[in-house]
Amino acid sequence: MASASGRGPEIRKSTVLNRWVIFSSARARRPSDFKSKSPAANPNSTSSLCPFCLGNEHHCAPEIFRIPSDATSGWKIRVIENLFPALQRDQQLLSQDPDSDSHSCFALSGFGFHDVVIETPIHSVHLWDLSSSGVGDVLLAYKKRIEQLACYESIKYVQVFKNHGASAGASLSHSHSQMVALPIIPPTVSIRLDSMKECFERTGKCSICEIQSQELLINESDQFFSIVPFSASFPFEIWIIPRDHSSHFHELDENKAVDLGGLLKLMLLKLAKQLNDPPFNFMIHTSPLRVAPEQLPYSHWFLQIVPQLTVLGGFEIGSGCYINPVFPEDAAKVLREVNVTF
Amino acid sequence: MASASGRGPEIRKSTVLNRWVIFSSARARRPSDFKSKSPAANPNSTSSLCPFCLGNEHHCAPEIFRIPSDATSGWKIRVIENLFPALQRDQQLLSQDPDSDSHSCFALSGFGFHDVVIETPIHSVHLWDLSSSGVGDVLLAYKKRIEQLACYESIKYVQVFKNHGASAGASLSHSHSQMVALPIIPPTVSIRLDSMKECFERTGKCSICEIQSQELLINESDQFFSIVPFSASFPFEIWIIPRDHSSHFHELDENKAVDLGGLLKLMLLKLAKQLNDPPFNFMIHTSPLRVAPEQLPYSHWFLQIVPQLTVLGGFEIGSGCYINPVFPEDAAKVLREVNVTF
Repeated sequence: MASASGRGPEIRKSTVLNRWVIFSSARARRPSDFKSKSPAANPNSTSSLCPFCLGNEHHCAPEIFRIPSDATSGWKIRVIENLFPALQRDQQLLSQDPDSDSHSCFALSGFGFHDVVIETPIHSVHLWDLSSSGVGDVLLAYKKRIEQLACYESIKYVQVFKNHGASAGASLSHSHSQMVALPIIPPTVSIRLDSMKECFERTGKCSICEIQSQELLINESDQFFSIVPFSASFPFEIWIIPRDHSSHFHELDENKAVDLGGLLKLMLLKLAKQLNDPPFNFMIHTSPLRVAPEQLPYSHWFLQIVPQLTVLGGFEIGSGCYINPVFPEDAAKVLREVNVTF
Repeated sequence: MASASGRGPEIRKSTVLNRWVIFSSARARRPSDFKSKSPAANPNSTSSLCPFCLGNEHHCAPEIFRIPSDATSGWKIRVIENLFPALQRDQQLLSQDPDSDSHSCFALSGFGFHDVVIETPIHSVHLWDLSSSGVGDVLLAYKKRIEQLACYESIKYVQVFKNHGASAGASLSHSHSQMVALPIIPPTVSIRLDSMKECFERTGKCSICEIQSQELLINESDQFFSIVPFSASFPFEIWIIPRDHSSHFHELDENKAVDLGGLLKLMLLKLAKQLNDPPFNFMIHTSPLRVAPEQLPYSHWFLQIVPQLTVLGGFEIGSGCYINPVFPEDAAKVLREVNVTF
């Protein structure tokens, strides 16, 4: 593969995210020189005051469920309420008529759910330290909780995400992820579905099923593959995509969960090794709840991993365009060649 | 005014930005307790190696113009090319046919301009240290450069922005702002214009002209007013809005530039005093080039200031929704009451 470094800048548009990204190697270091300046992990941090540690359950907000469900002390995963929820489950969902509102805006009460998935009882264990099936169990906990939340008719979408490292938004270092159940369809979801629908109607094809670039491929498993997307907004951004066309993450079965768990573990190990344990986020991009897959023939869920290596400034906030100093082909090559074993 | 603190969360939608924001005081400190933990300024930083300082002009990329235009050594403002441009002025604008592209995406060569406005020749002077007319001169430099860039037919939009502080994206501490001239209409602009058009067609009114809330008002000048928007995405976000309905920033005349300069200076002084010199960004939200105001009866430009007090995490990246721990009414009250004089 010819290196993309040194070539002129390029502006790419994703038909998945309907987003423009400027690739500019004039602003880049060499792709292999990217390292986090502020590694996320703090292996020596104390667990004595950590509410997520085994034995400190009484410092947490109420538990929703644990895995195994009958474990007394020896739990592996706990799903709990967030002690500082962005949304509240006891709010009534009331909307104001936009026309009655002098602010030219409208408002809903903040009804929703904000839950935490504690991925391990042990403070010093990272998600990628778990076995493939251990990571798979975390993914199945997301699935189970999504299925519970889907019973609330006013909940339209569940955003699953993980923040690792303070500069990626994590306020506690103990390995955990979060789920926010929203009474609205968030803008990225409607923009993504509109964009994929437009592409489907134009070409008859799912724009994610069509991704078959060897240049962008990082690794493959039986049922998933990982790539750096052609129009990645962030340097070393990764998407993990199910091979089978599937609209909803929570269609995941146990077999696929272990397979995805292994590939997710591999990607996180590669990022940690190549980029010096960077702070990162991952997000699951799925479809709205209670919409049948047949109604969304163009939708294909995926998991996005974003290491936090650059700062968003006024250009990104103002324009909604991103500047990425690393061409995706170069980032994919670097990540493909990182040697990790487990 | 009743304090909004302590009330339940609320989800608000802006008809200007077509964006959802969750307000959740459960996650907040008191509004008056917000302080930046990483102040932006470094007053002792050396100027000897700063390419933006008077006398170091030869370390910079080529100059486009200076103010006064005939100044030899005693310049006040310089507009120069960015040494590490995201886009390049010598690229040919070539687009690929989206249908011919196996990546399900499409790409343009990175044609465009990326300029820097050096706001003062003196290293230790901040934008808000200039007089009102000194700030006005910076705004008029933006206007002059936009008018030059508007001559390039393939340039569709100019994003003017300022990054202050490393964590807001500034790589040099010498006071400067940037202008990126794009061959596309950026997504925030098309989303904003679509949203304001929809509101205009529904109500017959400009959604920005309709903002008349005393609760959200911070300060007023003859021809501008500053508010915390009803659905602010960020804590202590400020919009400065021209009273006269006007679609394009570069319609600004000298009189208005001094007036806006004074109000911008006041807002930056208030943020610095109240929030401990936070890193911040400001962005000018205007209309596409070479579209006559009559064709955009619903568009109204404004200047947005965003102090960097919170971290964006997986929820924001994934959903495009924002969580703001400070209700706008509370932020406006705090900023209204900050006592600064100049």
